[in-house]
Amino acid sequence: MSIARALGSLLLLTSLLTAGCNERPADGVARERLAWAIAIHGGAGTIPRTMEPAQAEAYQAALTRALAIGRDRLAAGASSLDVVEQVVRDLEDDPLFNAGKGAVFTHDGTHELDASIMDGRTLACGAVAGVKTVRHPISLARLVMDKTKHVLLAGEGADRFGREQGVELVDNTWFDTDRRRQQWQEALAKEAAPVDGGTTVAPSVSPDGGGKGTVGVVALDQAGHLAAATSTGGMTNKRWGRVGDSPVVGAGTYANDATAAVSCTGTGEEFIRHGVARTVSSRMELLHEDVERAGRGALTPLKAGDGGLITVDRHGRIAFVFNTDGMYRGAADAAGRFEVAIWR
Amino acid sequence: MSIARALGSLLLLTSLLTAGCNERPADGVARERLAWAIAIHGGAGTIPRTMEPAQAEAYQAALTRALAIGRDRLAAGASSLDVVEQVVRDLEDDPLFNAGKGAVFTHDGTHELDASIMDGRTLACGAVAGVKTVRHPISLARLVMDKTKHVLLAGEGADRFGREQGVELVDNTWFDTDRRRQQWQEALAKEAAPVDGGTTVAPSVSPDGGGKGTVGVVALDQAGHLAAATSTGGMTNKRWGRVGDSPVVGAGTYANDATAAVSCTGTGEEFIRHGVARTVSSRMELLHEDVERAGRGALTPLKAGDGGLITVDRHGRIAFVFNTDGMYRGAADAAGRFEVAIWR
Repeated sequence: MSIARALGSLLLLTSLLTAGCNERPADGVARERLAWAIAIHGGAGTIPRTMEPAQAEAYQAALTRALAIGRDRLAAGASSLDVVEQVVRDLEDDPLFNAGKGAVFTHDGTHELDASIMDGRTLACGAVAGVKTVRHPISLARLVMDKTKHVLLAGEGADRFGREQGVELVDNTWFDTDRRRQQWQEALAKEAAPVDGGTTVAPSVSPDGGGKGTVGVVALDQAGHLAAATSTGGMTNKRWGRVGDSPVVGAGTYANDATAAVSCTGTGEEFIRHGVARTVSSRMELLHEDVERAGRGALTPLKAGDGGLITVDRHGRIAFVFNTDGMYRGAADAAGRFEVAIWR
Repeated sequence: MSIARALGSLLLLTSLLTAGCNERPADGVARERLAWAIAIHGGAGTIPRTMEPAQAEAYQAALTRALAIGRDRLAAGASSLDVVEQVVRDLEDDPLFNAGKGAVFTHDGTHELDASIMDGRTLACGAVAGVKTVRHPISLARLVMDKTKHVLLAGEGADRFGREQGVELVDNTWFDTDRRRQQWQEALAKEAAPVDGGTTVAPSVSPDGGGKGTVGVVALDQAGHLAAATSTGGMTNKRWGRVGDSPVVGAGTYANDATAAVSCTGTGEEFIRHGVARTVSSRMELLHEDVERAGRGALTPLKAGDGGLITVDRHGRIAFVFNTDGMYRGAADAAGRFEVAIWR
């Protein structure tokens, strides 16, 4: 072979390799799409291994119940958007989780709830922050998405919108639980003297990670559409109308049929700062990473203990990524997978 | 040359080319860094070419004044973080712009202000939404960043934080201007009958784009640090505590010394949905696009009329990207550039 032909082959092969780099599937692997898949989380944080067995069983039972609802609806052909809303509603009503009933207390002894939902098919999204009298914040977020041109409503305006929409209203005390009230009281007692010579006010977070709970669901339906939903009571003893990542599309929630659906949990500020949910998608879209690698890449800038995320891609592949000791979670798919877990 | 050596060279050259693809500078071009640079915007929207000459001159004078403040401070060595805050404060006080004084009216005839700021050096950020009694929302956002562990405060809690911090307080009527009151009255009059058979409530936006104004500043300082700040009154006749992109880090504001500082303006919902500000940075980081290309790429998913963004990278290169008829803007740098513009 002459040098000219060798160089010609070199150029050809190089161009082929380069084109291939830009055209391989998002996850680099040819695969069959699962008919449907769902992942749920109930929060990530310092979930103590010293948890009472009865408590651990209660969490496992709750995750199993919620996951089963999602499995049954998806298997029956329901849309991922309807399913993520319905499963989050179930978790909102469960006092075990820091969302809806069972939400943590604010500094003032009340509850302020945040939620967001996103439709991967259209990129439509809706969110509410600081809601006080709506039993199901995730459904209010859905109404923001479906009934308005807006994406985020905050404060008393969000509650007013709920009243106008005729959603189920409750007194703010409906969200009370003794356990969260106790955590709040402990946080008040522990409230640190200001650090940094009085220039920084450190928010108190309950030692059992109670301040970091959140619930979330991501799903792929039989039509191939992705959706994500997240709901939370925020951080124990929070003040000043503090808003975390759960109602911030791109931070705590994101869904795009081209890439993945994502729901996050943890120190909300870090998920906003690093735009975690959207970064999972961007890494898949721009770097062609698979959903697991993209999830790890998105969480990399955060420090140990900051939290985690659940995600499912358009093939039905699920990934759990967290830098905490545990994350309440569950996964089910059309191939028969059905499991829940707490620790690593 | 033998076939074996030719193939060996092929492999070597291919690997070299591949490595090179991943290691070129973020913008692909070796350049000197400008000592400092600043870009400002006063909103993008349907800025009518039929604007009275006196009005256009007033805008140009205001942009010139604000830009000169930034130029002088940066030339004197001030930090980009201090400069973006200071210039936004100037624009907040200017009744011409939809931020602070001159903010649009809500449906209830009040003002609810949003703002955010981000430090590219540390990725620290702070934001407020729905503020009513704080003269300079951008400074309150700065205090959220500097004095708390939080990133976003909303509603009356944000005002309360301002009171505790001793910021300058004003009555909500302080933000009133006749022009914005008139736009609000027109919007009320025009308030569309609900579309979609009554299922969607369409918010009214003033025809002169008054509903889309915002102010923002991005800067690179002599130490090589980037910062961004954005402030707005939101959308004319907005309801339900509607929050746009301006206080959402990653949507309307973003800064990262490794890539760029970004501030956006337009239909806030679209900037949240598409995570525009962060996407500029992600495209630079992951695709190695230059700031101009990344800005265009980030705005591509939005439709004509949705708005625009200003951005400056770590070399001091400035880009203005907008899909509207115009965007009030200005740019200055250490090479002597100093210009303001309204239309394309």
